[in-house]
Amino acid sequence: MDTRTGLPVVGMVGGGQLARMTHQAAISLGQSLRVLSVSPDDSAALVAADVRIGAHTDLAALREFAKGCEAVTFDHEHVPTAHIEALEAEGVKIFPGSAALMFAQDKGLMRTRLAALGAPVPRWSAVSSSSDISDFSGGTWPVVAKATRGGYDGRGVWMLSSPEEAAELVATGTPLIVEEEVPLRRELAALVARSPFGQVAAYPVVETVQKDGICVEVLAPAPGLSESRALEAQQLAIDLANALGVVGLLAVELFETEDGIVVNELAMRPHNSGHWTIEGARTSQFEQHLRAVLDYPMGETSLTAPAVVMANVLGGEPGGMSIDERLHHLFAEDPGARVHLYGKLVRPGRKIGHVTVLGDDMTSVRARAARAAQWLQEGR
Amino acid sequence: MDTRTGLPVVGMVGGGQLARMTHQAAISLGQSLRVLSVSPDDSAALVAADVRIGAHTDLAALREFAKGCEAVTFDHEHVPTAHIEALEAEGVKIFPGSAALMFAQDKGLMRTRLAALGAPVPRWSAVSSSSDISDFSGGTWPVVAKATRGGYDGRGVWMLSSPEEAAELVATGTPLIVEEEVPLRRELAALVARSPFGQVAAYPVVETVQKDGICVEVLAPAPGLSESRALEAQQLAIDLANALGVVGLLAVELFETEDGIVVNELAMRPHNSGHWTIEGARTSQFEQHLRAVLDYPMGETSLTAPAVVMANVLGGEPGGMSIDERLHHLFAEDPGARVHLYGKLVRPGRKIGHVTVLGDDMTSVRARAARAAQWLQEGR
Repeated sequence: MDTRTGLPVVGMVGGGQLARMTHQAAISLGQSLRVLSVSPDDSAALVAADVRIGAHTDLAALREFAKGCEAVTFDHEHVPTAHIEALEAEGVKIFPGSAALMFAQDKGLMRTRLAALGAPVPRWSAVSSSSDISDFSGGTWPVVAKATRGGYDGRGVWMLSSPEEAAELVATGTPLIVEEEVPLRRELAALVARSPFGQVAAYPVVETVQKDGICVEVLAPAPGLSESRALEAQQLAIDLANALGVVGLLAVELFETEDGIVVNELAMRPHNSGHWTIEGARTSQFEQHLRAVLDYPMGETSLTAPAVVMANVLGGEPGGMSIDERLHHLFAEDPGARVHLYGKLVRPGRKIGHVTVLGDDMTSVRARAARAAQWLQEGR
Repeated sequence: MDTRTGLPVVGMVGGGQLARMTHQAAISLGQSLRVLSVSPDDSAALVAADVRIGAHTDLAALREFAKGCEAVTFDHEHVPTAHIEALEAEGVKIFPGSAALMFAQDKGLMRTRLAALGAPVPRWSAVSSSSDISDFSGGTWPVVAKATRGGYDGRGVWMLSSPEEAAELVATGTPLIVEEEVPLRRELAALVARSPFGQVAAYPVVETVQKDGICVEVLAPAPGLSESRALEAQQLAIDLANALGVVGLLAVELFETEDGIVVNELAMRPHNSGHWTIEGARTSQFEQHLRAVLDYPMGETSLTAPAVVMANVLGGEPGGMSIDERLHHLFAEDPGARVHLYGKLVRPGRKIGHVTVLGDDMTSVRARAARAAQWLQEGR
């Protein structure tokens, strides 16, 4: 507890934009997020009062960081499972716990566990040699290879078109799984939050739009999704949160096919597919995550407008207008666009922020969000 | 400019809850608010990364603070006018400027200027002796005496019932004005923001409910206010912002009488009557103030729900449940209530936070907000 305020201290390992936006949410709850950041120039370290510099791979740093925290949680999945287990053994309240988080850290473990739970997953196989991949393909290419650990934003995913490509990838030594290429209609995401008490709150199911493996847009609620399919996705996420014992947020990334839904990925932290909740839901995912790890009752998850669209702002090519000039132009162009910049210098393809637009009509809201993100990305 | 982000630095003098919530808004704009705080335990100092400790009455501290800021602005009105003039002479962009702010700092100057502008004001008079008050009353008591400087939350306002009470107050040496007691139906507030470019954005007019001189509730939009009266109040605030050359927010506190509206007070900063805008308007007053002082185009001011109510949380008597326990109970009681705690230790009557509730029906929204504030204040 912070004796200056009588309110709890939550520590978040990692100083990226998720920690930055969680700090924003913490302020409303009377808190100040403690951040473990690799660099003082990291996104969250630029804005938080209580920043500790240290590596998430350094157990001593984690141990020191956790002192005085009511709960410790994560901005990313990269803390070694053994470190989390060590902290748990020492009595640190760390959420999600190692027993849950390992399924978000390792795709092989995740696929095995999900299959055991009877959750819908793509056809898949563990890989220990390139012949495993060829056997899995049965001569039908392409197949999808995924690094079991550490991939994100399209990194760590490969479409393999031949046994030769499979052999080349396996030769790099990256631990892999292989999956069928799912004939998907689109991608969805189901976001829930679960507290230690066991309360689970589910957000409306959204559609996520990817480009080159990076999420570019999120549409809330997912347009044209039947109520039964939406309920099925929410129920699946709730069941997984309970079965895995997740505390905090669980984002279930889904493929929608002609026949139903299958689980693509799990994330156990605030997630890009939930940034729209800052303005678009009664309780943002960031506040919800804090409420969950502190075992507060969950907040309302309902939409604040019939149509909400979040568009990521990716860094454009260097040169041209500065981000500040682009912001001026965007604000003149669309006074209703809600901008979130992460305090990151622009680099091509880097997520430097996002924009959210709310309204009554999904088509026009989506067009406005896309245009706003484009303005910030390229300027004119 | 912050070279780590390519985005501007705004400095706010004063570390109270207004700076705290302005920092929250700054984070979305890619910024980190610089705060000049008297103590490291002040509300904003607890959550901001860039905190300088110093007094707002210390010109050297203000000068040092302003270095590297694109714009300097205020959490309160207590910076001496002469200091602001000195900084302006040195080229600091400080908003609102001294030529505008003096009318929010001194009620005598404000009344004189407003009368000269033809704005509706209560009958009033300057006071240099107790006979000025008796002459003003013309034998009809009570009259209202106000300290020309420094009053807030009911402090600095006296209802005088006799020449003896007037003489007693004048004897304290407090510089005063005297006003008629306005036969008010209720209080309203009109909030606008103006940029150096001259763009002005007006928020919907709200009703403010006071108890013992302290604002306890704000209802947005003001229930039952005719469109013509609302437009009149907005136009008045816009005209005053232009005439006084305000840059940033201007809150015009109004008395509504049987005959129309008269100006009670002016504030040139984020204002308690605008806290509802965090969730209840498309652009919060805090972001709007930043946009104004940076000369960004203004954001949309429209309501996000038909009925929005903000209720202040005042500190209750010591003992009983902790604020953290009370928060647990409130979240269980009303998962949709939006809580903002300021990181201040509870003291009786102290504003320690506010709650906002949104919905379709003003009566039920108001009841929920009042109940939520009550839960946080007293616990059960």
